[in-house]
Formats: sequence, C-alpha cells, structure tokens
Amino acid sequence: MNNTDALKNIRIVLARPSHPGNIGATARAMKTMGLSDLRLVLPRHFPHPDALARAAGASDILENAKVVDSVSAALDGCVLAVASTARHRELRHDTMDARAAAREALDAAAAPVAILFGNETAGLTADEAANCRIWARIPTDAGFSSLNLGAAVQIFAYELRMACATAALSPVAEFAPATIGQVEQLYAHFEERMTVSGFYNPASPGRLELRLRRLLARARLEAEEVNILRGFLTTLEKPKRR
Amino acid sequence: MNNTDALKNIRIVLARPSHPGNIGATARAMKTMGLSDLRLVLPRHFPHPDALARAAGASDILENAKVVDSVSAALDGCVLAVASTARHRELRHDTMDARAAAREALDAAAAPVAILFGNETAGLTADEAANCRIWARIPTDAGFSSLNLGAAVQIFAYELRMACATAALSPVAEFAPATIGQVEQLYAHFEERMTVSGFYNPASPGRLELRLRRLLARARLEAEEVNILRGFLTTLEKPKRR
Repeated sequence: MNNTDALKNIRIVLARPSHPGNIGATARAMKTMGLSDLRLVLPRHFPHPDALARAAGASDILENAKVVDSVSAALDGCVLAVASTARHRELRHDTMDARAAAREALDAAAAPVAILFGNETAGLTADEAANCRIWARIPTDAGFSSLNLGAAVQIFAYELRMACATAALSPVAEFAPATIGQVEQLYAHFEERMTVSGFYNPASPGRLELRLRRLLARARLEAEEVNILRGFLTTLEKPKRR
Repeated sequence: MNNTDALKNIRIVLARPSHPGNIGATARAMKTMGLSDLRLVLPRHFPHPDALARAAGASDILENAKVVDSVSAALDGCVLAVASTARHRELRHDTMDARAAAREALDAAAAPVAILFGNETAGLTADEAANCRIWARIPTDAGFSSLNLGAAVQIFAYELRMACATAALSPVAEFAPATIGQVEQLYAHFEERMTVSGFYNPASPGRLELRLRRLLARARLEAEEVNILRGFLTTLEKPKRR
C-alpha cells in the first residue's frame, strides 16, 4: 500500500447527523482506513457517550473533530468536495460511483478534499449537495437502499484506501488549484458583470446560474486562472488605457 | 448492474458473534447489497432487540436467519467458503484481498458460496478458518486495524455487489460537447474582448493565450456553454437594455 499520505488530506464531513452512535462508527471507520480529519455540521448530540462507545479505539478522531455551523464552513480550504448522495443528476455535477469518486478525490488530495455525507433520514439537501462538484453514489439493491450512515462512510473510506494502492504515480501538480471559495468569488464577479452588461437578469435567472457554476466546477480551475479571469472582469469595470 | 441473481447464492456466516447489534448491522448491510442468506453459529444473544434495532428495515433477514451450532453446519451445501481474516497465510489457503475474493466468490456462485466472519474480539479460530479455501483480508491502516464486524460484512457485501457489475457506472453524456472549432471561436472572442478592455496586449502577450487555451481545453465545454459565454461577450460590445 503506497501513497497513503494523501489520506491525511481527506476530510470527512457529516452534515446534521442525528445519531451520535453514527458519529462514533464514522470515527472508527475512518481510523481503520487511515483517515483522521472529521468535521461535524450541527450534530444533534455531540459529544455523547454513544459516539464514544461506537468509536472503540478511535476516540482521538472524535476529540479532534471540528464542529461547525454550515457545510460551507466545513469545506473551508478544500479544493474538491464530493457528495455522497443518491440524488438524481442535476445539471452541474459529475455523477459517478463511489469507487470512481474515491480515485478522483485521491488524485486531488495534494490539498484538502472533502467527502460530504447527509443526515441519516433526509440525506443531503439540494443546497448542501450544491457545494460539491462530484456526486457519488454507492450502488445498492433497488429494493432496499437504506445504507447506514456509518456504513456509507466505511465504504468510502475503504475505497479511498484501496485507491491508494491502485493509484498510478500521478504527475506533480504544477499549479495550485483554486479553493472552492475562490471559485465562488469568481462566479459572483461573473454574475455582477453579466448583470451590468444586461446579459443576466437576476429577476429572471433561468438556468444561467446553474450552467455557469457547473462549468466553473468542471473546469477544475487553478488559483492563477481565477486571478486571470477576475483581472479581465475588473478591466470591464474600468477599462485600462493602453 | 447485471447478474445480481448470483447474490442469492452468497451466504453470510457469523461465527460466535458476541454483540447482537452487530447481527442487526450485518442484516442491514446484506440487504442494502442484495444478499439475503444469513447463518449464525452459536450467537451469544439471538434474537435480541439490539439486533432488531440495528437491522432497521432488514428485519426479514433476521427472521429468516438460521442458527446452527458449528461452522461446518453453516457451510452445508456450499461449493466455496471464504474466510474474512487477517491471519497469516498457511499452506493450504489462497490469500487475497476482499475485492479479489468477492470476484472469486461471485464466479463460483452458481451454487451456494459462504463468506465467514469470526467473533468480534477473537476473530476466526484456526479450525474455523481451516474450513475455507480462500482467506481474504480487508486492507486497513497498520496502526489501527480494528474493523467493526458489521463494517467488515458491509465491505464484503459491497464488493460482491460491485463484482456483479462488469463496468463501473460511467457518467452519462447528457449534453452535446462543443467542437474544437467552437472552442476556438470562443477563444478568439475572449481575446478580442480582452484586447478592447485593455486587459490583453497582443503586442506583449506573455502566457495569457497559453493559459486561457489550456483552461478552455480542460473544461471540456459543451456547445451550449460556448453559446452562453459568447452571448455574454457579445453584450460587452453592445449592452442590452433591460
């Protein structure tokens, strides 16, 4: 098993987990596979003895877990976010199975990468999933798709570890990837310029926002490319003299 | 997902499980992946409300589970038995990882095939494991290999289901990709607008052209996205009235 250092950059995010036992199971699932960075978005009960009991020897993961109040905050600093969801494909997302998603996540894990899991009953909301470029699905039986939250984390963590073994030595990233926040700022800048030019009418948005966000997510922008595009958009506000 | 009928011939055997919660988690893990045949060898507590609680919607698996008093009895009628174990290889066994073992199991599953899991604390005894031709190991972190029993069953069940698919789920191409010519026209349009705005000086191009072309190539643009971006660039020439 090579290359497991990249697992240190994989962050597991649980959005609004209801059952503390599942938080503990998540910690144990993570630690068995070499993951350590856990973020909890508005957990209903945490810390909790049930979490500790199910974590078994992985209580250190719970102690170091960060509790935050939004998915955006949990994704802070990440260059890629993967949603574990059975939602149907929407316009802006790459949809793939957990195995393919684990490979993509590992490829990007020279910088922080998040795997996002929703609430036990409700899953991820559309808004939560919208933060993620990749929507990943664990194949299940058509008649019974009710995978336990801890079990879903276990499968992803396992696939991430398996991906370490199969990953080809990938070329060193020559350029720094943009963070999700930088891409968000770029989108906002585009929208503002498109509104001023009359191309986009916020009162009648249609699918333009969705399409543009999807394009930007798919492009896997580098930080420098965001700077270039924003530099161009800025000159539209105040043309430079040549 | 093809060929999932073979999953009906895969039998999950738990040898001397201590915690009824793990029996319930096993039932749920099995049902999510399309497995149904559960055998319990001398369970410490069964039936038990903890098993029922953790099974969630998979109580039918528990109701149909057969309780037996030896591993040999649990393997009755099987053509192949796979042990889930971290034991060192012994002379008579094939040793492989869970993924490879799942493929072998499925290949043999025209007739009943068993996957055997040991007690939570002690694992499989040498005698129990000796019943199995294949010894399969789930890769874990060297520092913490303490996989929960239900989680181990989940990973095997998942690998069995994945083995049913001949090819990974691939993203469906829903939208028409842009032609190289369309992307080229888009690039030219960008360059023209960037020149007019003063952002780009064709007399001193630097690496801007290279970077922008590289970005557009990487984005795998769709035809409609090219239209959107060119629509925006056009409004910069002649702002629309709103």
